Amino acid sequence: MAEDSLDVVGIGNAIVDVLAQTDDAFLAAQDLPKGAMTLIDAGRAEELYAAMGPGVEVSGGSAANTLAGLAALGGRGGFVGKVRNDQLGGIFRHDIRATGVTFRTPAATDGAPTARCLIFVTRDAQRTMATYLGASVELGPDDLDAEMIAAAKVTYLEGYLWDAPAAKEAFLAAARQAHESGRKVALSLSDPFCVERHRDSFVELIGGHVDILFANEHEICSLFQAEDFDRALQAVRGHCEIAALTRSAKGAVVLAGDEVHVIDAEPVDQVVDTTGAGDLFAAGFLYGYTRGEGLYDCGRIGAVAAAEVISHFGARPEAPLDRMISERMAAG
Amino acid sequence: MAEDSLDVVGIGNAIVDVLAQTDDAFLAAQDLPKGAMTLIDAGRAEELYAAMGPGVEVSGGSAANTLAGLAALGGRGGFVGKVRNDQLGGIFRHDIRATGVTFRTPAATDGAPTARCLIFVTRDAQRTMATYLGASVELGPDDLDAEMIAAAKVTYLEGYLWDAPAAKEAFLAAARQAHESGRKVALSLSDPFCVERHRDSFVELIGGHVDILFANEHEICSLFQAEDFDRALQAVRGHCEIAALTRSAKGAVVLAGDEVHVIDAEPVDQVVDTTGAGDLFAAGFLYGYTRGEGLYDCGRIGAVAAAEVISHFGARPEAPLDRMISERMAAG
Repeated sequence: MAEDSLDVVGIGNAIVDVLAQTDDAFLAAQDLPKGAMTLIDAGRAEELYAAMGPGVEVSGGSAANTLAGLAALGGRGGFVGKVRNDQLGGIFRHDIRATGVTFRTPAATDGAPTARCLIFVTRDAQRTMATYLGASVELGPDDLDAEMIAAAKVTYLEGYLWDAPAAKEAFLAAARQAHESGRKVALSLSDPFCVERHRDSFVELIGGHVDILFANEHEICSLFQAEDFDRALQAVRGHCEIAALTRSAKGAVVLAGDEVHVIDAEPVDQVVDTTGAGDLFAAGFLYGYTRGEGLYDCGRIGAVAAAEVISHFGARPEAPLDRMISERMAAG
Repeated sequence: MAEDSLDVVGIGNAIVDVLAQTDDAFLAAQDLPKGAMTLIDAGRAEELYAAMGPGVEVSGGSAANTLAGLAALGGRGGFVGKVRNDQLGGIFRHDIRATGVTFRTPAATDGAPTARCLIFVTRDAQRTMATYLGASVELGPDDLDAEMIAAAKVTYLEGYLWDAPAAKEAFLAAARQAHESGRKVALSLSDPFCVERHRDSFVELIGGHVDILFANEHEICSLFQAEDFDRALQAVRGHCEIAALTRSAKGAVVLAGDEVHVIDAEPVDQVVDTTGAGDLFAAGFLYGYTRGEGLYDCGRIGAVAAAEVISHFGARPEAPLDRMISERMAAG
């Protein structure tokens, strides 16, 4: 793989999403905290699935969604993540490759099945997730693709990996490899509960290894135990090279040293399903970043990509993002 | 199972659909006849899947879609079909049960995997299908659920079953069982190519065993080798008790003895994907029929259910069909 042949390599959980519509009463009855991601074991996954309505299966995974978005924008990406050699693993492998992303992590041949995330979408377009990590926790340092990491301008890590010990090790090894090759390391905090589980080590990690941090308002407030967004914003300044903070309908704030940009959210006719909004913001941002765009434009591309994905069911883009972006950016 | 405890029991191929968007050039390159269903073997299924874009998996199968539609309308249904005990089989079982349909056909524990249908949707909303029948051809007379057949007002069979010898036998046995219990037998012709493959035996079957025939214009013309719809219409009269003939945007014609009804298609804002239109027309029609509605109203309910399913991606209803129907029927 030639130097600079990839824009971004993503490392994350390889997950197939199972989406179904539901209501608040179901979430309450099943004790699922609305809007968040809960980790579940195999038994609970079976129980919850049995109670769930008819589903739609689509490949997911936070970093994998970001890479699929990057590819839809015209970027060149790679993905590292672990599936089992089962039917859901075959679906994940097919879909990520079909978007144009390089994926060559070998599938596990025994152990737990491919990870799945049960996603409950309520009428207010919120998504509540219950993830059975299955084979994805088998990802370890040996699965890292040193050639891809060296070839990619940015190595993008999802915070969810921190939940599995071997993956956490792989995560740190990837960050080291990227920096040794003179590359940038980006991290998405993934989820406020994930931040809560790993707050101290995340703060340390970000200070020591992360160049570009993606977080939404809840995550960044949780990370710094800040009472409001402004305090979190002050706390994150200087903590890493770039921080891109998303705030749903309130848009995003991008910080880099003394540089500050406030980006409006892109208007959406109807928000159908917010699954993947953060993942696609990161995709758009990194697409701009790896093309040398200014940080304001990176944020705007992120906002357009996020707007597309929340206007339909599912966490990967459906519309031709590359054309959308060039039209929107030309419109100014 | 108490007498009359079910409205309809459907017998058909138990299939998981894999939907992706594509263009005419892809169909031509892959030699797929646009708008039709082609049967493929395991090797070709793998090859085609590898060439296909990122997919969305949803439970499908023609009769199974009809039963899911019936359940969404508030009807009580059962389904008989064969999956393998694999992940796709688990998805099929979950989804059909989650719609409220009774499904208890045991899964095959060896042999071919669960059937899948690769569905290529073009921008003109047409769907072109390539089906790998897998485990579904293992359905045989032993899998019939005599209790369900006796309990259901209508036994609904899909023409596609005629492609597998054991399923064909099951099909005939089910028709006999239904009639012995004083029940009605309905058949959907499924596909013009399917009709071509089995024309003579279909004509014989319909004359001898079928009370209610569902067919679209192409299928009924193929069945009677008629040059136009009018000739097919004359040919089908008297051939079975009721014939419900669908004509896409031109609506439907329902014939029963001397009775003739012409039903307009229900207007649709935007046709997104015609997959499932015929299946949902049958669902609506049978829902009305099993409630004792007149044939004109049966056709109208069918038209509303079909309109819903073509206005989105996928072959099973998303909107609350029961409410839609009562609103539309009240509006007159």
